[in-house]
Amino acid sequence: MAAIKVHGSPLSTATQRVLACLYEKGTDFQFVPINMAAGEHKYENYLSLNPFGQVPAFEDGDLKLFESRAVTHYIAHEYSDKGTQLLIPGSNKDMAVLQLWKEVEAHQFDSPCSKIAWEAFYKPLMGMVTDSAVVEENEGKLAKVLDVYEARLTRSKYLASDCFTLADLHHLPTIQYLLATPSKKLIDSRPHVCAWVKEITARPAWSKVLAMQKQ
Amino acid sequence: MAAIKVHGSPLSTATQRVLACLYEKGTDFQFVPINMAAGEHKYENYLSLNPFGQVPAFEDGDLKLFESRAVTHYIAHEYSDKGTQLLIPGSNKDMAVLQLWKEVEAHQFDSPCSKIAWEAFYKPLMGMVTDSAVVEENEGKLAKVLDVYEARLTRSKYLASDCFTLADLHHLPTIQYLLATPSKKLIDSRPHVCAWVKEITARPAWSKVLAMQKQ
Ligand SMILES: N[C@@H](CCC(=O)N[C@@H](CS)C(=O)NCC(=O)O)C(=O)O
Ligand SMILES: N[C@@H](CCC(=O)N[C@@H](CS)C(=O)NCC(=O)O)C(=O)O
Repeated sequence: MAAIKVHGSPLSTATQRVLACLYEKGTDFQFVPINMAAGEHKYENYLSLNPFGQVPAFEDGDLKLFESRAVTHYIAHEYSDKGTQLLIPGSNKDMAVLQLWKEVEAHQFDSPCSKIAWEAFYKPLMGMVTDSAVVEENEGKLAKVLDVYEARLTRSKYLASDCFTLADLHHLPTIQYLLATPSKKLIDSRPHVCAWVKEITARPAWSKVLAMQKQ
Repeated sequence: MAAIKVHGSPLSTATQRVLACLYEKGTDFQFVPINMAAGEHKYENYLSLNPFGQVPAFEDGDLKLFESRAVTHYIAHEYSDKGTQLLIPGSNKDMAVLQLWKEVEAHQFDSPCSKIAWEAFYKPLMGMVTDSAVVEENEGKLAKVLDVYEARLTRSKYLASDCFTLADLHHLPTIQYLLATPSKKLIDSRPHVCAWVKEITARPAWSKVLAMQKQ
């Protein structure tokens, strides 16, 4: 039995973040599907894994974690000698730059991108009506963030360095949903962002995450 | 001249987070006030320090950073042998627990607490009217988060361990504003949370940050 367990849903962005990290590392793990439609993430036994009643939850032997970005941080450090090197080991200054771009994803990128995905991808899928004012407002915010990315990506191939790191990986789930909406134009109109998105969404580890949605 | 420079405003929560960390470490630094009322954070020379046009921005010699939590991460690692030990050095598993509670602050606590502070503290100060529906909605969210903290703090003195860490420190600026609003009742009604808040707001390093507001 694998020591690592991921409890979650293949459609959840936060779950996908953890899965992408595990596939990059090539570590064995067991996936425990949580039926969110049935409200399983609010069941008492699940709340002992994640008291906020959200997916994912994570176990590695005795260690229990939640919050997707805390989990990827742990996996990247604990399995640093396996698979893709997702950190910039060495100096504190290089690691600080990685940490900076991880924070930018979490505090600048995630909110507008997730809001657009909710309005323009999930809502139509569920027969609900997109609020175009919300889309427009968040396209404005996301455009400003992507302008910063465009400038950054003229100087390094990936956000934190010339290598793929957690800072890039953390974007994958929300970017993938964005690509399925008309707001994709925000990416297409910025050549370096566009090349970066092509590069990171083409990673074999990410294909494995997407394949799990079809099972 | 100090190698470390913090550009920001003593009233900004994100700036305060960095200042609290520097005072805990006891490292010398130069504070460069940014006049936000005059829009200095949108000036071109400032945008070269933080392309998002937000405070704070940070320099340590050649290294330029922004995003308050990336800055505290760097300071805690780079100056790990000075002042208060804000990390849990040693095992990846202990560091993972610290990382988890840092993520909880950023992704569960910060948003409802900041929204209440905006509505119930800043707005009245600026002659604007508090939207009580927004306060109520976010009190509901914050109450759920503080229920999780209450349970957690029966098991350890601070969020990540029995020692004060970055996970606690990151809460200080938003908690301080919350204490100045009627929503303070959410803290007062939870004994372990209340004791924790008393403990962390009483730290000498935090008093130094508050004193900067009075200069
Ligand atoms: N900050 C958390 C967010 C987790 C999250 O929002 N999960 C969503 C699915 S992507 C969820 O469980 N939503 C159900 C709920 O909040 O009740 C993380 O990164 O793990
Ligand atoms: N995630 C950023 C947030 C920075 C932030 O929002 N700063 C505010 C002051 S607390 C600001 O500069 N606001 C002005 C603006 O966004 O234009 C951090 O933690 O440093």
